[in-house]
Amino acid sequence: MERNYHQGNGMNIDSATIEKNVTCMVEKNRLSHHDSQKKFEIRCPRGTRDYGPHDMALREHVLNVVTECFKRHGAVTIDTPVFELRDILMGKYGEEGGKLVPFARYLAMNKTVMYLKRYHIGKVYRRDNPSRGRFREFYQCDFDIAGTYDPMIPEAELLRIINEILIALDIGSFEVKVNHRLLLDGMFAVCGVPKKDFKTVCSSIDKLDKLPWEDVRNELCVEKHIQCGVVSRLETYIQHNSSLTNLDLLKWFEDDESASKNSDIQRAISEMRQLLDYCELFGVLPTVVIEPSLARGLDYYTGAIFEVTLTDSSKKIQKENGDVSEIQGLNIGSVAGGGRYDNLVSMFLPKHKVPCVGISIGIERLFTIMKEKAKMEFVRSKNTQVLVASAQKKLVKERMKICRMLWDSNIKAEMILKANPKMLDQMQYCEEHKIPLAIIVGERELEEGILKLRDVPSRTEQDIPREHLVEELNRRLKVLE
Amino acid sequence: MERNYHQGNGMNIDSATIEKNVTCMVEKNRLSHHDSQKKFEIRCPRGTRDYGPHDMALREHVLNVVTECFKRHGAVTIDTPVFELRDILMGKYGEEGGKLVPFARYLAMNKTVMYLKRYHIGKVYRRDNPSRGRFREFYQCDFDIAGTYDPMIPEAELLRIINEILIALDIGSFEVKVNHRLLLDGMFAVCGVPKKDFKTVCSSIDKLDKLPWEDVRNELCVEKHIQCGVVSRLETYIQHNSSLTNLDLLKWFEDDESASKNSDIQRAISEMRQLLDYCELFGVLPTVVIEPSLARGLDYYTGAIFEVTLTDSSKKIQKENGDVSEIQGLNIGSVAGGGRYDNLVSMFLPKHKVPCVGISIGIERLFTIMKEKAKMEFVRSKNTQVLVASAQKKLVKERMKICRMLWDSNIKAEMILKANPKMLDQMQYCEEHKIPLAIIVGERELEEGILKLRDVPSRTEQDIPREHLVEELNRRLKVLE
Repeated sequence: MERNYHQGNGMNIDSATIEKNVTCMVEKNRLSHHDSQKKFEIRCPRGTRDYGPHDMALREHVLNVVTECFKRHGAVTIDTPVFELRDILMGKYGEEGGKLVPFARYLAMNKTVMYLKRYHIGKVYRRDNPSRGRFREFYQCDFDIAGTYDPMIPEAELLRIINEILIALDIGSFEVKVNHRLLLDGMFAVCGVPKKDFKTVCSSIDKLDKLPWEDVRNELCVEKHIQCGVVSRLETYIQHNSSLTNLDLLKWFEDDESASKNSDIQRAISEMRQLLDYCELFGVLPTVVIEPSLARGLDYYTGAIFEVTLTDSSKKIQKENGDVSEIQGLNIGSVAGGGRYDNLVSMFLPKHKVPCVGISIGIERLFTIMKEKAKMEFVRSKNTQVLVASAQKKLVKERMKICRMLWDSNIKAEMILKANPKMLDQMQYCEEHKIPLAIIVGERELEEGILKLRDVPSRTEQDIPREHLVEELNRRLKVLE
Repeated sequence: MERNYHQGNGMNIDSATIEKNVTCMVEKNRLSHHDSQKKFEIRCPRGTRDYGPHDMALREHVLNVVTECFKRHGAVTIDTPVFELRDILMGKYGEEGGKLVPFARYLAMNKTVMYLKRYHIGKVYRRDNPSRGRFREFYQCDFDIAGTYDPMIPEAELLRIINEILIALDIGSFEVKVNHRLLLDGMFAVCGVPKKDFKTVCSSIDKLDKLPWEDVRNELCVEKHIQCGVVSRLETYIQHNSSLTNLDLLKWFEDDESASKNSDIQRAISEMRQLLDYCELFGVLPTVVIEPSLARGLDYYTGAIFEVTLTDSSKKIQKENGDVSEIQGLNIGSVAGGGRYDNLVSMFLPKHKVPCVGISIGIERLFTIMKEKAKMEFVRSKNTQVLVASAQKKLVKERMKICRMLWDSNIKAEMILKANPKMLDQMQYCEEHKIPLAIIVGERELEEGILKLRDVPSRTEQDIPREHLVEELNRRLKVLE
């Protein structure tokens, strides 16, 4: 998981690399196969893994929270192929268009679609060398708003959405860093950074959340040969942020003599002020922090730029490569990022202008964090509500009849698929899978036209007339919800 | 979509083939690129396509029905990588292990998992030449029950599940053809089919749902060099099915002198009788048809074999390649298939025995059929319940406040993301997307502390005190459900 979600080009299968790696692994297995005819390794291809029932239940929970939020905001979903033609992917757009390419290609191919609020969640593949502990198969989650709208209204809704999701996941405190491409452009112009160096300077100052200014200055002056005077001027614009409130920061730029004359900076300040206004109306202002050093290194951003980071210091997070890293204060790594990219569609189709703003959610990182959090609790992998059990032998058909009745009534029910399961095994099955209720049928119950309803946690039982069973179950299940 | 869902080896990416094809396409594009610097084709790679909001809403509906059913039966989901090591896939198991391989590999790698009722739905990729109009990227849906259970109980639950799904989709009438591997083995033994010819004879007689006996006989005798006496004997066992009921058919085998002495046939008949019994208890007997010619060509089946076909003659179906084919009576193509495969796990891990039975649902075919069906109706691609609109200019912040209130109350709400949208545009947006309710804020409403609630279809409006808005919306939305 990279911090630049809109940068990774994970969305395309690079089939050549996969093939090469798979071939290597096959070779290796064939060799050991030779050594001893019987021995050969059963495992997943390198860089991939299985997800068992508990992992999947957790993933499903996270994905449900995310998609419910998207739908609450009127988003639709579209699906694009996992691979794109190499021309489209790499031709003149560079690798970093990455994840946005399929959506921009879709809009260029569907010219009548001038407005679209959509999300896309799916597995993607990346060409990385998997040996670094990164996965080659992983989920990606993008939300984008395409269309000609008024400044900062779609941006504010994006920030509202990421707030809703992180709050619903109960994942701890977080902050949304916001910057504006025109603030970067304006600052660079005022400081004298040459246009050709935009990207490389961005990528250096973007490291300020991890490195002290001295290291960044060193990188700029020594490694990247940016004039030291330029770098010193940059410092004054970038290094004052920590102590100022958002509004004071914007005011600082307005009060600065050079900055206030730059039209890019003027527009950026005005738009960000508007964004703060809208965020207050949407109830998400407390999470927003304006951060002039946020750059994300992506030169296709044309307006607002976002990055969302968890700020809760009380958690340990297991990294994807298996290491456990303690979260200390800020910068445990971003969980979402994005921005406005108004020109990407017209790169595919000149003169076709569809402005877009989007956010990419680091869903694999959310899975990891939620898994760490879930270790404290029991996660149910199945949602069975009732086990239909029998007290004596030869009652398989009676259990089947009851199951049918429950399935017909849309109750999640199971029976052990054996002719004569032991009572103890059936009750253990309930406890193992946290199935809250059991129906027990026995010879006495059959004679009397009743069924025994057992509350599994309390082990209390009650006789229920057969014809009232569904009704009573629904009543109990409603209480349990 | 093949009729043999458990046969296709679509689950593995054959990266070499994809690479070759992509390279071809890239070459072609580069050439046309050369001709005219500006012109280059924007499209999906061959064999893939985009799915827009309406397609996706339909797919989501189908997948919801399917997963809800699986969960109602206590199934969990696991996820395995989309590609497997070539040794595992092709080594000694042959290509046709195909879709079952990842599940069997999972069970072999997780030796403590001796019981598992699971489903897996995901995109898979196939190596086919895409020019035949088949897709290289498509969904696959599998449900399997692993574990040592008593005969035919898991099989009966499988048939119940496929019944529940097809009924919930309201897809028309269908039948579940059932056969038994031991009935095939026994018939072949009685008729004198050599063991080595099992697979090839199976694949011929499996065509009897499409071809007359004469063609199949010809294929067996002439093309496959099976002795004509053997083929004639086969005919007597296979060609009497159409007129007999299930029970009469089983009785026919019991009354046949040669068949009744064969122990495989005895066991198959006894198990199928038990399956019919259980199917009656589960309420699915009317859909079950025993079909001794059903073979599905898969020699890893060890017990029951299933195939589910739609029998509704009143529908036209658009095939995946774009052709429209009229459904005439039976055999419009199968929508699910499967069977028992008790030995696949021990092929990976000798001595580790995990019996399995599973069914693979032709989910892409269900999508196609449901899409055809949906053409008669309007399919909503977004579920927005309320549009927050304004009657005059300069009310964007008021609309935002109301949206926030609705999102906070978990109501699916949208506003047009413009500062001053026209009233007419806002109402058209409701009608276009079938949004049932609109809230209209205007200067008068602000003064009076009310909001106007508009019922979009009837165009009736009502003033609601602001503090009662959420309550009133929830009341109206409940009625609309």
